[in-house]
Amino acid sequence: MNVSEAQAAELIQTVKFDDQGLATAIVVDAESGAPLMCAFVNRESLGLTLRTGKMTYWSRSRQELWIKGQSSGHEQLVREVRIDCDGDALLFRVEQKGAACHTGHYSCFYRRLDDGNWKAEGEKLFDPDQVYGRS
Amino acid sequence: MNVSEAQAAELIQTVKFDDQGLATAIVVDAESGAPLMCAFVNRESLGLTLRTGKMTYWSRSRQELWIKGQSSGHEQLVREVRIDCDGDALLFRVEQKGAACHTGHYSCFYRRLDDGNWKAEGEKLFDPDQVYGRS
Repeated sequence: MNVSEAQAAELIQTVKFDDQGLATAIVVDAESGAPLMCAFVNRESLGLTLRTGKMTYWSRSRQELWIKGQSSGHEQLVREVRIDCDGDALLFRVEQKGAACHTGHYSCFYRRLDDGNWKAEGEKLFDPDQVYGRS
Repeated sequence: MNVSEAQAAELIQTVKFDDQGLATAIVVDAESGAPLMCAFVNRESLGLTLRTGKMTYWSRSRQELWIKGQSSGHEQLVREVRIDCDGDALLFRVEQKGAACHTGHYSCFYRRLDDGNWKAEGEKLFDPDQVYGRS
């Protein structure tokens, strides 16, 4: 990544965050281009992502910084960053360690519309109970 | 697509819309898988998308239904629909007519982070002034 603190601050200024201070982060596999997940960044988490090269989100449900892979080890190493025309969505191409989805699927988009219903596809790469513990 | 009205109503029930009644719509090229744009759907526009097979969004800026390509001719024909694990983001693989971006670029994500700055890539496929008229 190699983004300096000053550059990160300038880049953050170009992003159009919504009234909750969030922008959409779309994350795709750097190699295949396959969509992995969609989440949100705020100014702080985007700054950390740009500086560290590791995807860091803002968790709306937990209302806290979310360094992807911190508990699971399934981190996302940023290989490319893009921004859309109106500046409210960012696209990250990442090297995915393990799997992106907390269900164990490689991608969070594992359900496909098939004959009017959602159909789950693909194998689970890990057992969520083992990675995150039973609750 | 071939989604009945009853199926569309059921599918909409499975989507987790936010407190503004919106879900994220990520749109990628059906052939290459390249990300084209990111916008929002509400219940009505998602229903129309599923029933008509043409991407229809909710425009937050204009606060109205937005049938993609209605003024430009650059419609998006839906070839596949996916939903993410927590149900608040949908992924559409589409056949893109013309170009997705109002700037004339094929994709809205035409700016890539390069040496600390956004760098525009790719040719414009149309002149926005000619397609949308000068304002």
